[in-house]
Amino acid sequence: MHEFELVNKYFSKLSSHNRSSLNLNDDVFFDKINKLVISVDTYVEGIHFIDFKYPDLVLKKILRSSISDLICKGVKPKYYFISGSGNKKKFSKKNLKMISKSLKEEQNRYSICLGGGDTVFSKKLSFTITSVGFSNKIVFRNKAKLNDDIYVTGNLGDSFIGLKVLQKKIKLNKNLGSYFKRIYFNPILHTNIVEKLLSFANTSIDISDGLITDLEKMINKQKLSYKIYLKNIPVSHNLKKLINSGIIDKISSVSRGDDYQILFTANPSKSKIISYIGKSLGVKISKIGKICAHSHKSQIIDEKNKKIAFKNKGYLHKF
Amino acid sequence: MHEFELVNKYFSKLSSHNRSSLNLNDDVFFDKINKLVISVDTYVEGIHFIDFKYPDLVLKKILRSSISDLICKGVKPKYYFISGSGNKKKFSKKNLKMISKSLKEEQNRYSICLGGGDTVFSKKLSFTITSVGFSNKIVFRNKAKLNDDIYVTGNLGDSFIGLKVLQKKIKLNKNLGSYFKRIYFNPILHTNIVEKLLSFANTSIDISDGLITDLEKMINKQKLSYKIYLKNIPVSHNLKKLINSGIIDKISSVSRGDDYQILFTANPSKSKIISYIGKSLGVKISKIGKICAHSHKSQIIDEKNKKIAFKNKGYLHKF
Repeated sequence: MHEFELVNKYFSKLSSHNRSSLNLNDDVFFDKINKLVISVDTYVEGIHFIDFKYPDLVLKKILRSSISDLICKGVKPKYYFISGSGNKKKFSKKNLKMISKSLKEEQNRYSICLGGGDTVFSKKLSFTITSVGFSNKIVFRNKAKLNDDIYVTGNLGDSFIGLKVLQKKIKLNKNLGSYFKRIYFNPILHTNIVEKLLSFANTSIDISDGLITDLEKMINKQKLSYKIYLKNIPVSHNLKKLINSGIIDKISSVSRGDDYQILFTANPSKSKIISYIGKSLGVKISKIGKICAHSHKSQIIDEKNKKIAFKNKGYLHKF
Repeated sequence: MHEFELVNKYFSKLSSHNRSSLNLNDDVFFDKINKLVISVDTYVEGIHFIDFKYPDLVLKKILRSSISDLICKGVKPKYYFISGSGNKKKFSKKNLKMISKSLKEEQNRYSICLGGGDTVFSKKLSFTITSVGFSNKIVFRNKAKLNDDIYVTGNLGDSFIGLKVLQKKIKLNKNLGSYFKRIYFNPILHTNIVEKLLSFANTSIDISDGLITDLEKMINKQKLSYKIYLKNIPVSHNLKKLINSGIIDKISSVSRGDDYQILFTANPSKSKIISYIGKSLGVKISKIGKICAHSHKSQIIDEKNKKIAFKNKGYLHKF
């Protein structure tokens, strides 16, 4: 059973169902009356990060992954809480110093502040990050409209290649390898678009589990389908090189998650203003497809205008 | 290095130091402007709970431990978030059903609501609970005044005996054993005193690590000492039996933590009103000592008016 099905089945009845707050079928908790937005995520060594060879980079990455949940909802993160479980070696003075330094850099970059946390002893290394923001409005999931355009910010797939390089499953020259590793550890978040997002997006999610998986999660309660054009999915110049040389095919590379780009839909009438906002803020925004009727089957269309039979839908937390 | 020293050394600079929010030297995070109070705690199997034989009871206990952090500060908890790491067996359908049922009971008892959470796969079982409340005022740590009376709610020590019974380190008859196990799994929280606390307490903490350890944590930044009278420390009728029969001595049993009673200080002029509020709300409140000058050494005085040499100060999260 997938993580979200499991959570839904046993715990959705426990979450608040009044109009002021979200139920568990979203990435963040929202209390409209108190203007509070919260995201809670746990990251385990060997699952969500490879190892702790670079503790500073790991903490940077998982913190960005956590605040990304708020940013994709149109909410500026303000505080974060870290609860770490690990052994003495993992929490050595040297590591703590490195972590503290990198968190400080992130605080300055994103104007966020450590609110608190907990440290406990455990053989297995894991971190739970709680991110907190304040807003009286958020972009919800499951609010796509028929005929909406589907958009995504930035580029997809670089982080997955970085992971494969780190795992030594893909061998690249030093420069190229460094590029992908850098994106893996430092996903690019678009904080400057946060407040604008509320003005044009009907629904949104961040891409953590993979483009197709997250697209389906974004509209999982709606009787709608989607049509995605492979050629419109944005990839970096470097990833294009790998695709062209046959090292990886495009749909696989862009569907493995860890991108932390914003996936959203908007009414076609917003097309011009979205393009203008993207350009003026220096944020790449690509139109990649359309929201279609439920009677259609969701489709991914390749460069030759053919439907792709695509099975691997990215990362799912299986129990 | 102790948990709080370690946290302080490397991370206190990262927390907000403006007047509107607490630094890391407290049990909760408080943002006065947004009236937000948050507590984050992680509970690991084998450290914070023995095992997962009774998943419903474990979740009840750790949830109470988490909201206790808010209650002892005079803040009503409103939402909680649970992030669980464990394997398929620990998160079986049967266990999830039991957990869901027990959380529902807790929600009704304390008027709280599940806001969300996360479930991830890990060999090691642990839970991180984030508790959230709203208040424009809290009772801080390190605000004791010279000559303040020291008070504690409820009884201390029963939970520790319950743990020893569960660990089969103390053997008691069935009735007595059940009593202590029940208190271990169901610490008694005093939610009805929450709002009153703000009117009389100068400083407060909940007793999770042990009476003496938490008393010292409560005033750790202040140039003050304390004098505690052993005879005034409240214990249950059942624990008294064990003490009288020589199974355990009083100071050991009441200093091991897991009690989740409120420890606070108040000006001597509040003595009558505290006694009245306790009686009218049906909450046992015991005066156990005094806050003294820094020039004195902190003391625990026994029944024969002699100082106790006490070393075991309870539970510390060591790295």
